[in-house]
Amino acid sequence: MKLYRLNPGHGLAGLTRHEHDEPEPGRGQVVVRMRANSIGFRDLMVLADNYPLPITPGVVPGCEGAGEVVAVGDGVTRVAVGDRVAATVFPRWLDGPFRRENAAQLGTGVDGVLTEYALLSEDGVVHLPEHLSFEEAAALPLAAVTAWNALTTGEPLRPGATVLTLGSGAVSLFTLQFAALAGARVIVTTSSAAKTERLRALGAAEVINYRANPTWWERVRAVTGGRGVDRVVDPAGPLEQSLRSVAAGGDVALVGRWLSGAAGAAPVDPALLFSSAATLHRIATGSRAHFVELNRAVAAHRLRPVIDRVFPFDEVPEAFAHCASGGGFGKVVISHG
Amino acid sequence: MKLYRLNPGHGLAGLTRHEHDEPEPGRGQVVVRMRANSIGFRDLMVLADNYPLPITPGVVPGCEGAGEVVAVGDGVTRVAVGDRVAATVFPRWLDGPFRRENAAQLGTGVDGVLTEYALLSEDGVVHLPEHLSFEEAAALPLAAVTAWNALTTGEPLRPGATVLTLGSGAVSLFTLQFAALAGARVIVTTSSAAKTERLRALGAAEVINYRANPTWWERVRAVTGGRGVDRVVDPAGPLEQSLRSVAAGGDVALVGRWLSGAAGAAPVDPALLFSSAATLHRIATGSRAHFVELNRAVAAHRLRPVIDRVFPFDEVPEAFAHCASGGGFGKVVISHG
Amino acid sequence: MKLYRLNPGHGLAGLTRHEHDEPEPGRGQVVVRMRANSIGFRDLMVLADNYPLPITPGVVPGCEGAGEVVAVGDGVTRVAVGDRVAATVFPRWLDGPFRRENAAQLGTGVDGVLTEYALLSEDGVVHLPEHLSFEEAAALPLAAVTAWNALTTGEPLRPGATVLTLGSGAVSLFTLQFAALAGARVIVTTSSAAKTERLRALGAAEVINYRANPTWWERVRAVTGGRGVDRVVDPAGPLEQSLRSVAAGGDVALVGRWLSGAAGAAPVDPALLFSSAATLHRIATGSRAHFVELNRAVAAHRLRPVIDRVFPFDEVPEAFAHCASGGGFGKVVISHG
Amino acid sequence: MKLYRLNPGHGLAGLTRHEHDEPEPGRGQVVVRMRANSIGFRDLMVLADNYPLPITPGVVPGCEGAGEVVAVGDGVTRVAVGDRVAATVFPRWLDGPFRRENAAQLGTGVDGVLTEYALLSEDGVVHLPEHLSFEEAAALPLAAVTAWNALTTGEPLRPGATVLTLGSGAVSLFTLQFAALAGARVIVTTSSAAKTERLRALGAAEVINYRANPTWWERVRAVTGGRGVDRVVDPAGPLEQSLRSVAAGGDVALVGRWLSGAAGAAPVDPALLFSSAATLHRIATGSRAHFVELNRAVAAHRLRPVIDRVFPFDEVPEAFAHCASGGGFGKVVISHG
Repeated sequence: MKLYRLNPGHGLAGLTRHEHDEPEPGRGQVVVRMRANSIGFRDLMVLADNYPLPITPGVVPGCEGAGEVVAVGDGVTRVAVGDRVAATVFPRWLDGPFRRENAAQLGTGVDGVLTEYALLSEDGVVHLPEHLSFEEAAALPLAAVTAWNALTTGEPLRPGATVLTLGSGAVSLFTLQFAALAGARVIVTTSSAAKTERLRALGAAEVINYRANPTWWERVRAVTGGRGVDRVVDPAGPLEQSLRSVAAGGDVALVGRWLSGAAGAAPVDPALLFSSAATLHRIATGSRAHFVELNRAVAAHRLRPVIDRVFPFDEVPEAFAHCASGGGFGKVVISHG
Repeated sequence: MKLYRLNPGHGLAGLTRHEHDEPEPGRGQVVVRMRANSIGFRDLMVLADNYPLPITPGVVPGCEGAGEVVAVGDGVTRVAVGDRVAATVFPRWLDGPFRRENAAQLGTGVDGVLTEYALLSEDGVVHLPEHLSFEEAAALPLAAVTAWNALTTGEPLRPGATVLTLGSGAVSLFTLQFAALAGARVIVTTSSAAKTERLRALGAAEVINYRANPTWWERVRAVTGGRGVDRVVDPAGPLEQSLRSVAAGGDVALVGRWLSGAAGAAPVDPALLFSSAATLHRIATGSRAHFVELNRAVAAHRLRPVIDRVFPFDEVPEAFAHCASGGGFGKVVISHG
Repeated sequence: MKLYRLNPGHGLAGLTRHEHDEPEPGRGQVVVRMRANSIGFRDLMVLADNYPLPITPGVVPGCEGAGEVVAVGDGVTRVAVGDRVAATVFPRWLDGPFRRENAAQLGTGVDGVLTEYALLSEDGVVHLPEHLSFEEAAALPLAAVTAWNALTTGEPLRPGATVLTLGSGAVSLFTLQFAALAGARVIVTTSSAAKTERLRALGAAEVINYRANPTWWERVRAVTGGRGVDRVVDPAGPLEQSLRSVAAGGDVALVGRWLSGAAGAAPVDPALLFSSAATLHRIATGSRAHFVELNRAVAAHRLRPVIDRVFPFDEVPEAFAHCASGGGFGKVVISHG
Repeated sequence: MKLYRLNPGHGLAGLTRHEHDEPEPGRGQVVVRMRANSIGFRDLMVLADNYPLPITPGVVPGCEGAGEVVAVGDGVTRVAVGDRVAATVFPRWLDGPFRRENAAQLGTGVDGVLTEYALLSEDGVVHLPEHLSFEEAAALPLAAVTAWNALTTGEPLRPGATVLTLGSGAVSLFTLQFAALAGARVIVTTSSAAKTERLRALGAAEVINYRANPTWWERVRAVTGGRGVDRVVDPAGPLEQSLRSVAAGGDVALVGRWLSGAAGAAPVDPALLFSSAATLHRIATGSRAHFVELNRAVAAHRLRPVIDRVFPFDEVPEAFAHCASGGGFGKVVISHG
């Protein structure tokens, strides 16, 4: 079988394709024939060795994938051969809050899913919503789980609440879709007139052009009657504007990619953290339980993820190059054909 | 001005109409010219003196009403003359959990709103959603607040969750409408084929005829893949069937009118409470904060309450008689014309 | 090695001793040389086949045990050979709420710990507080975890709150000890003057003799200024009195052994459930995370469990007979010497 | 009667003493004969007009006071003449979360309690624990309520948890006392060897000298086995060190006085907010419900606040000067003799 391996710190040059024997499942393990993967900014950070977790040299990259169970080891009860499943990003984080002891992550510390056959624990896979293709399901494990976690942490989100999300990255798009399902009024920022229409079609009540409104928090205040939003899901800052956008008692969820020195990550005055009267949460993807719960919502509403473009498995490097070029709308997916 | 007074324990015969001077607002008080009221089963229980709170003889009955502020006392800041407002059922329960010290209730311990001009505290009124008429707004204070409280207590309700509500009383209808807004899949029971269609039109995913299915909990299990529902909002039992309908870890909210010896209130085996693996909540209408929050959802979604029938203020006794006859669908409203 | 096996429904006659080869750990598994076990009423119910879960004939009984890791399988990272550990009652319930998919329990569906060497998953063991002997640690997995779960579910327990627990069973004793650590004022019922002193020594602020006060809820109300307690941890009823003892907004935790027809399990009027204004929780032991958290508290306060009597491993039947005779104070422990 | 008034922005020179008629209570109001007040850093900020809320020129300053009810207006039910009460800092924040509509605060927007007779709403006073003198009770409304709110927001505090608080300001001392009651292990920083002993006597498990350990977060990590603390109550920064001290999943409560440009308020890298994996809360004193709940804990444990020094009512300016000089230990109290 084919798989990719990763030599961190060399960017795309560090990504190499290999042949390998098909794995055998040990006790509690399953082998999943991968049918689709997805990739994103997180993987580019991993390739660049610019990621907050240690990366094992030679690790199989990729933390997002869906496929079919083809073999199960002793004692496996949660899935059976033939089941359609997706891998969870943190295979040991099953439920409850994030704990450091469950921090092992696919594609950094342990082998990921950019492979034809992945060896996973039975606890580390979840069943797919029936109406989704493998390509669509492969879009969920990182961005959808993060969005679900961001929307279900802190004060419960209720119909009529206002949610602000920034830009049209994958987490923001899922945030928009899930928040709209929950009856919230969703405000999104973008710099693109073309994306404005697509965001509205996905359910955005307000789209604010952050180029036209560099102090867009003032627009957010204006369209919320001065009160601010109940929740901000902020993938990339500037955090100061998020803090100025949130209502007293609201929640700000930091998701994604907060790196020292990054654009958007300008230092924040603690006095602003204080005067915002908000609660600031840090969201680390999510647990198996988050994934199971969001799948139920996706299934009940026959929701479909937004796919930007699909590449064949042999063209993973091209897919990464496309990712790095930016400007897409939706997830970049790898199909195993 | 005209108002009604109540001599408890005499049913409709205890309800009498009176003339009275218009009230003057004291410090922190407002006078509301009532434009509409609504009534329901709770008021029939009060008339019968069959209610769990003490009733002051001669009290002005009615706990649901909407109107216009016509005068404000010293120190009032929350509302102004001309504002459209509804009264809150528990004028002292502003926020947070129910506490005995805030148990005074309109129309039992303190004067209610079946009057042309009501004297209320400024904390005891909330602004109306703009799109609602006074008649529609008058339908909210008891049943909608109860439904909102029932849906927001316990585990947060999330898209894809399943909610069961029983019958088509006013609380059940609001539960259905609000749960659907929140992205839940709602199951409702009824005994009427005619109501089945109306319940579906309001958003019910499943309607179970409890006459045709006397052990309807089995139907609930069947349509939830054996798992049971995440939440039951139970206004009148039988509680045993609710407990058999709920999933492990789910919530059962007791709302409304639980009286010893009532049909539906058969004693429950604690072993069933235990084996249900559910949490049982008692819902006592709700706070001012619940009302404000639901109004925001109602406004955002331009939701409209279901009105059964509207009576003029002079025909309050006829309205009660209509209520007592049962079989309606939606709130019985009194219009001041 | 020696172990016991169980033929359910035959009481003590169904308990037999066997010789068996020492187990080998598979992937993710550990072998624990058991040094101590404890037993209780739950095991008597299992022997009698009077337990709410199915029991595998020939299963190794016992769900409480502590010992030393003597071998670890592939991929084990949480523990190492030589570590002192206790088994968790639900090996798959690691964190978050109870879910049916994690309901497999030691000593009923899967082999338990009344054995010299137990084969367990690495996730199914937790490290012991250093100051505890194996005999003391063996007292924790069922009763202490249940008490911790009961005290940490529902409204958070805060200093100055009042907690009522019933009788001096093992769960009640841990409830008393843990609630006192949390700064609560603890009320306990008993029928024994001798136990009264021991309960006070463990930190009880009030001890009510339920023989002398058959309607002891009135005493509870009296010693709480009429308000009632914030939380009841009720292992055996009568639930009606618990409901009359709890304050509005309080929590009642059903723990332990709620069987139809049992003394204490008289049917309850839903009107009382409603008028109590309390929330009723069902507590099913607890998760690995509960156990880890309580161990931290036990370690920080150098708390010691109450041991009733210690039997050698060869005298497990005698230990069960002692258990069945009732009247003890603290856990019945089995030492492997 | 005598009272002080405040001309903001002039420091102590803006504080003047006046004669005034005794107030008459309106509907829902009470008159409290003040017996003691306390003051602190917050009042110095108000005098300097360096406070995040607008200050009414001529307002009676002071938000902390205890005394005796001497008159009640119409409709008052919560208190009676002769009751010993304390004022709440936010008279309209009764329960539930902080909301902007309840932001009016004693001594800034509305008249405070540095007066012989204060006119307050009945909802804006709470009964005192019996064992406290007026001087001790006057120490509670700001600092103790803040500490209670900080400890009860976010993840519930449980026995065995670790709490870090910074310095020996009044909020820190109450945090220490309350967290110890709750069974937590409390770590405190100080720069003074003399205070070290007093902090230990109040229950601190660890005292870290931040002069001797300028990167004291490393000490915090060391004494928590590398894990960090579950909760930081941070009155004055540096926030960066708090974020480095907190465990994954822990809570950081910002309390007190966060001003742009203040020592301790250096800007914070959002990447650190993210990598801390903590939740950041902003604490704004607290509600009436917080105060009632903490009073119950204070009463149950006969806890006594730490008093630094007591000044007579005529020497309020001297008391402020003492406050401004810093270095005290406990609350500065004003006694009306």
